[in-house]
Amino acid sequence: MEQISKGLEDVNLKWTKLTSIDGEKGILKYSGYKVEDIIKSGALVEEIQYLFLYGELPNKKQLFDFQKKIQEGYSLPDYVINAITNLPNNSDSVALQMNAFAALAATVPYKWDKQTDRDVAAKVVGNMSAITAAVYRHILGLQPLRPESGGSYAESFLKAAFGKDPSQEQVDAMNTALILYMDHEVPASTTAGLVVVSTLADIYSGIVGSLAALKGPLHGGAAEAAIAQFVQIGDETKVDDWFKQNIITGKSRLIGFGHRVYKTYDPRAKIFKSIAVNLIRNNPEAEKMFKIASRVEELGIANMGSKGIYPNTDFFSGIVYMSLGFPLKNNIYTALFALSRVTGWIAHFIEYVEEQHRLIRPRAVYTGPADRSFVPIDQR
Amino acid sequence: MEQISKGLEDVNLKWTKLTSIDGEKGILKYSGYKVEDIIKSGALVEEIQYLFLYGELPNKKQLFDFQKKIQEGYSLPDYVINAITNLPNNSDSVALQMNAFAALAATVPYKWDKQTDRDVAAKVVGNMSAITAAVYRHILGLQPLRPESGGSYAESFLKAAFGKDPSQEQVDAMNTALILYMDHEVPASTTAGLVVVSTLADIYSGIVGSLAALKGPLHGGAAEAAIAQFVQIGDETKVDDWFKQNIITGKSRLIGFGHRVYKTYDPRAKIFKSIAVNLIRNNPEAEKMFKIASRVEELGIANMGSKGIYPNTDFFSGIVYMSLGFPLKNNIYTALFALSRVTGWIAHFIEYVEEQHRLIRPRAVYTGPADRSFVPIDQR
Repeated sequence: MEQISKGLEDVNLKWTKLTSIDGEKGILKYSGYKVEDIIKSGALVEEIQYLFLYGELPNKKQLFDFQKKIQEGYSLPDYVINAITNLPNNSDSVALQMNAFAALAATVPYKWDKQTDRDVAAKVVGNMSAITAAVYRHILGLQPLRPESGGSYAESFLKAAFGKDPSQEQVDAMNTALILYMDHEVPASTTAGLVVVSTLADIYSGIVGSLAALKGPLHGGAAEAAIAQFVQIGDETKVDDWFKQNIITGKSRLIGFGHRVYKTYDPRAKIFKSIAVNLIRNNPEAEKMFKIASRVEELGIANMGSKGIYPNTDFFSGIVYMSLGFPLKNNIYTALFALSRVTGWIAHFIEYVEEQHRLIRPRAVYTGPADRSFVPIDQR
Repeated sequence: MEQISKGLEDVNLKWTKLTSIDGEKGILKYSGYKVEDIIKSGALVEEIQYLFLYGELPNKKQLFDFQKKIQEGYSLPDYVINAITNLPNNSDSVALQMNAFAALAATVPYKWDKQTDRDVAAKVVGNMSAITAAVYRHILGLQPLRPESGGSYAESFLKAAFGKDPSQEQVDAMNTALILYMDHEVPASTTAGLVVVSTLADIYSGIVGSLAALKGPLHGGAAEAAIAQFVQIGDETKVDDWFKQNIITGKSRLIGFGHRVYKTYDPRAKIFKSIAVNLIRNNPEAEKMFKIASRVEELGIANMGSKGIYPNTDFFSGIVYMSLGFPLKNNIYTALFALSRVTGWIAHFIEYVEEQHRLIRPRAVYTGPADRSFVPIDQR
């Protein structure tokens, strides 16, 4: 049989100027800037969104104009919000985002064009904030609120989601989470969206394709699955037994550990942990989860670190979301991941369509029956 | 720079027992049966849907049971139909299908399982009929009607779409169109859906991903674009001038011609043409389009046939849809393509997840700036 590129593991799909990963050393850079340096600098997520779309960090004027464009996206047609609220409150949060973007795909004309792609992209980043806030409120049975212009991206989102002013600590943590999940080269979600836009389908359909892939438990679902695993363990004192029974003896997969690309500590996991440490103070449930996670982490590294299996970005991110006040419910943590990642998706789409476009059309190897003569149903 | 597999052109994504294509000879087979033989036999599309899911043609009992399962899918929760009717009547038809399937993804629990995948698949094939009929009626401003059990798949769909009994000739033509578009290995739409389900996302999200890719003008949009091209030409007598100005001198792309895999006549194009010949009799507009298309075809082959560029399946399919009574409106022809293709998508998903599963995660080659030091905004 001809060779099959299973999982496209060693296949380069495109070039990129966005993200580079050194999986051996555990270094993640956005357009040449180490992610740790970006977080340390206290940059707004809007600065990094700008970097992804324009290739350079913005000055104050550029940032201001960019924020204005994002804020245009905060208002959405009623039928987009209805596409969310029409569905039951127990709906999956990422699928609700899919509905909202499919509603945009159904109604907003789009043609890829270097002159306008980035303006639309900024607006879509704004759309995503309004959509995700509406999704969050809907799954709690609350009326959607629109993000307001004025605050930063992280602040406006939290205020629209919670219906009250967030603390500075919450805003900073949300800002960091938004930066950390912004892009990671071409995982399944980005790949799905790239396949979509390679047909020159519109930007909204591309996002729908990415969301559909992110929804899966092997991808975006992992942050929620990791914390669900901690909930299942239940208590710090039970970790050692649980680990022995499930991971060592039971050979279960340790969720939030291991990554196709990283063979050492995922740098994002370290940062998520460092913000969790502070945020959990006011949230006993999150504090409990953090203690469980920390012990699981120790045992995991002791047992699997030598095989290059370390905590990945999803290991502590759920605890951060929980500390911020988001309950573990309806896959909302994956929807928060998507809120961040949408910028990476769009930036990859733009790179691909504008500068390296080719319809994505792989092949399959036929292994079925050779020639057969058709037998009518009366003779079967 | 490391090599990039542009468009994944020479990459084998998976093995398949479904469809095989001999692009040099223009032969398309479904599980070993030549598509021409299937059409000649007068088989129902349900027999071929069964073949795709179970690997063998059904006997009468098996077909009956399978049809029952499909018919279960004809009833949908109200909120799925509302996901369509909530949107403006001028919405894109494929995006409306996306909304309906995203609504299912939001609410129907799904776990891939060999014991149940095929039962759900049959029901999804039924869902797609109900959804597409509702989409068609909605874009015309009509109340959706539910397909009724009893008739064949093609007949029930046409009756639900048109709100009246179709003629036998219409049913036969629709049945043929449904078979011809059922699968074609791993084009962009199938690939997008495969990337989605490789994350173990649910079957509905997989279909949403496939629909998003099909929506693009370089893929499913081609059938509608081909006939739009004939409308633009306007009249049989204007073809020669149009062809000279646009294709020969103007170097425009001739829509409905050429295919990544076929280097000769696409066998489906021949069959679509043979049904169009009869169907156009009662539809002057479609007859006009057919005459234009036939002349474009002659000129196209004379000019480009030597380069392996021949009519593809989209060249005549739009004329068949128009003859059946579907107006050229809101991308509905692409939605009819999806109605057929959904079986191929699902069959590929099942092959992939059940027997050759691996998360699809390619790589990108970084070509951006090397290390940069982060400069805070005040110093930019």
